[in-house]
Amino acid sequence: MSKKPTISARRRIIHTGVFNIEEMDLEFTNGEQRKYQCVVGSEQGAVLAVPLLDRDTVLLIREYAAGTDRYELAFPKGHIEDGEDMLVAADREIQEEVGYGARKLEHIHSFTIAPGYMSHTTHIVLASELYPQRLPGDEPEEIEVVPWKIADMDQLLRCHDFTEARSIAALFLVRDLLQAEPGT
Amino acid sequence: MSKKPTISARRRIIHTGVFNIEEMDLEFTNGEQRKYQCVVGSEQGAVLAVPLLDRDTVLLIREYAAGTDRYELAFPKGHIEDGEDMLVAADREIQEEVGYGARKLEHIHSFTIAPGYMSHTTHIVLASELYPQRLPGDEPEEIEVVPWKIADMDQLLRCHDFTEARSIAALFLVRDLLQAEPGT
Repeated sequence: MSKKPTISARRRIIHTGVFNIEEMDLEFTNGEQRKYQCVVGSEQGAVLAVPLLDRDTVLLIREYAAGTDRYELAFPKGHIEDGEDMLVAADREIQEEVGYGARKLEHIHSFTIAPGYMSHTTHIVLASELYPQRLPGDEPEEIEVVPWKIADMDQLLRCHDFTEARSIAALFLVRDLLQAEPGT
Repeated sequence: MSKKPTISARRRIIHTGVFNIEEMDLEFTNGEQRKYQCVVGSEQGAVLAVPLLDRDTVLLIREYAAGTDRYELAFPKGHIEDGEDMLVAADREIQEEVGYGARKLEHIHSFTIAPGYMSHTTHIVLASELYPQRLPGDEPEEIEVVPWKIADMDQLLRCHDFTEARSIAALFLVRDLLQAEPGT
């Protein structure tokens, strides 16, 4: 296992109000020196919830995504607020975006999205034993909730609006997890 | 299906040399107006290659990731150059990072990583029928190549340095694809 390079300096390039970009001077153990730029996210990271309506069905949302300028199907997600527990954050996000609360919340994995240049981490939470409960969110328009049978996952993977790597990876994890559980 | 919001204005906030950040003024069909900031990537996007050493084994790389300041296990990836075919880009990346060329290259999916605020798209390419072939890359230190049996994927998912959502999703896709193929 290699020894990590030394970070000899770290400078903020800009904080745009949304994105915090820093530049780092690195020296690798072989003497190679590099400058890298990174998008630095919050310490606490983000949460992605997989809401399980029943043993066979997940709830997705269809929401406008400004980065790709199209509507995207994905699991609900959002930032964890300062001092907020990740399970509480997941429960809050599904109340805001899906209209359900969850009696059972389990942290099943944590993902990075582009570790080479983003510090961003997303914690994946399986939310089950749902009950109708709505919290007001800050979304600009009503979010469409789309139930999907896990058995029909192949069809979902062929949808050109279901592209987000975190949602795809989370769905595979949940499918494997449920298949490994004894049936109820 | 909702009608997309109108983008009434689009401004560059900064181009840092690495990141291009833009701000957009949006009006949703219900009249709600918002400003969103996005990290705008290249039109052609990036490529992630899953190198298949044999029917049971993928090749991962362990590389320092500046965003998370640790070594990460993931599949080789990189930008597609201007005018470069995505399959050619995948073959180039594995020659630079893994030391193999591929006689067979198949585009199996395309992922976004954070469509809400990044335009970034990564094309997933399955690279098989490998042969030893090395191209010089621009990496600051030698990259460790880590073969992994697909059957031991559960163990890989428990490694705290295998976190990247694109690599995890791509590995699940490849596993399902190979399981669906008739045995050789």
